[in-house]
Amino acid sequence: MDRLLYALSLLGVIVSACSGALTAGRRKLDWLGVLAIATATAIGGGTLRDVLLGRYPIFWIRDPNYIVASLAAAVGTLLVTRFGKPPRMALLIADALGLAFFTISGAQVTESLHSPALVVVLMGAITGAAGGVLRDVLSGETPLLFREGELYGTAAIAGAGIYLLAEQLGWPTSRAGLLGMAAIAIIRFAAILWRIRLPIFHIADED
Amino acid sequence: MDRLLYALSLLGVIVSACSGALTAGRRKLDWLGVLAIATATAIGGGTLRDVLLGRYPIFWIRDPNYIVASLAAAVGTLLVTRFGKPPRMALLIADALGLAFFTISGAQVTESLHSPALVVVLMGAITGAAGGVLRDVLSGETPLLFREGELYGTAAIAGAGIYLLAEQLGWPTSRAGLLGMAAIAIIRFAAILWRIRLPIFHIADED
Amino acid sequence: MDRLLYALSLLGVIVSACSGALTAGRRKLDWLGVLAIATATAIGGGTLRDVLLGRYPIFWIRDPNYIVASLAAAVGTLLVTRFGKPPRMALLIADALGLAFFTISGAQVTESLHSPALVVVLMGAITGAAGGVLRDVLSGETPLLFREGELYGTAAIAGAGIYLLAEQLGWPTSRAGLLGMAAIAIIRFAAILWRIRLPIFHIADED
Repeated sequence: MDRLLYALSLLGVIVSACSGALTAGRRKLDWLGVLAIATATAIGGGTLRDVLLGRYPIFWIRDPNYIVASLAAAVGTLLVTRFGKPPRMALLIADALGLAFFTISGAQVTESLHSPALVVVLMGAITGAAGGVLRDVLSGETPLLFREGELYGTAAIAGAGIYLLAEQLGWPTSRAGLLGMAAIAIIRFAAILWRIRLPIFHIADED
Repeated sequence: MDRLLYALSLLGVIVSACSGALTAGRRKLDWLGVLAIATATAIGGGTLRDVLLGRYPIFWIRDPNYIVASLAAAVGTLLVTRFGKPPRMALLIADALGLAFFTISGAQVTESLHSPALVVVLMGAITGAAGGVLRDVLSGETPLLFREGELYGTAAIAGAGIYLLAEQLGWPTSRAGLLGMAAIAIIRFAAILWRIRLPIFHIADED
Repeated sequence: MDRLLYALSLLGVIVSACSGALTAGRRKLDWLGVLAIATATAIGGGTLRDVLLGRYPIFWIRDPNYIVASLAAAVGTLLVTRFGKPPRMALLIADALGLAFFTISGAQVTESLHSPALVVVLMGAITGAAGGVLRDVLSGETPLLFREGELYGTAAIAGAGIYLLAEQLGWPTSRAGLLGMAAIAIIRFAAILWRIRLPIFHIADED
């Protein structure tokens, strides 16, 4: 069980590092810059989670395997993309999986501190979204989180909510977590494939 | 007295959430994106204050009322602006009040840790300005803090200084705090209404 | 020895404040905005280091001399540039020295917590680069860290690595630290003067 959680968080770091390398690779950066952005994407969300919760030492200082996994994934992405263009969907899939893993992991850590549901959902969404926002800001792109019709925050909030709900219904934590992750990935894919959207909100200024 | 401080900090969160919703509403975001930016604006400054001071659990994890107040204010702003354009001044007034509340609250918390005056003023200004900077960065606008002639940082620093001075002169903390807040709001309004400015500093490069 | 470290970290704050004032001075900001960006540049990296490591109180709250040094350096820069254009190299030299000081200081603090080498190098590079990134983001410029051919991160990582290596070879900490700083400054100067570069990595999208 704890092993499953550990394996999933390593997997989250790995897919996030891939998404970071793929985003940074579209800009003309030297390979060290690509590694830097990939690492920041991979550890950004969890770092913010640990700092906001005051969990010291933060996860990648306590366990440097996360840094190793992140660097290996980024180098792997660089090598693979040498030999062929990555499919356009690769970035979106890696990003959706990273969002799914980190949102549920952020929610679970916060839950273990006996926080109320609202705080658990919010910390899950922050943990999930922060890595991708950092990646896009460092790469000079508009964060996916704030792009129209991406359902990015929606997916994170809905997934964390479904996770908590399933636990309330008596599901074991691990299965509830997998359900929450699946919900996040499915909502993101739905937004991308079928262009499902939330209503736009627009204020026109007086002038 | 502690009650007054609590009421004021809730009020600070509320006006900041309104300013966040009004800023994000000018961009074409879905309503969840608007809520996200409003919440980030409302809790950003206080979160940075608590993290820099190492005060755990941070304020909105200790007391989720802040999240509830922030979401309610953001939803209220969305509803009100459905039925009519907000006056152009609404954003600037909400922003000025948020700056006033958070600067003094940041200064007061830091003071309670027996820090020297310089640190108290700096932490006040950081707490006050951070929410608005986060709001503008996430909305893709130049932060008010760095826009010419806004006297944004000046207002925060002057207000925190006046607060400390009034305390030195023997005023009770609550009245000194209200004086500091009034000073901040007045300086901001003066900058907006009468276009008072500080001298511009410009370096021309050799070339 | 501890004295040398203290003197060097004050020097790091001072040169970083100068680089912040010179960068902010190119934008049309009032003088208080210039002071704010200079201070953020000077204390940004060390603040991030202390927050990530959970070292409370953070350095400039524990010792306000850092704030005094930073403000004095920024005011000095403003005064000097009143009387003549700064040479174009001034900014790049101040920035390189700041990167050198903060990278090694970040590495040394992390080392004292018995972290593995990979974490020491990463925290050194984060500490070194964060101030400059904050400076450039607040000034609305592309961070030097991500500009093509600057070898910015490379210099930080190489310098931290050389520092650790020299220690392994039995050098005393102070001399190993000076060697690491020299390596960082030399790599940055080499990148600027002789336009030495790392290979660019570029992914072309399918479409």
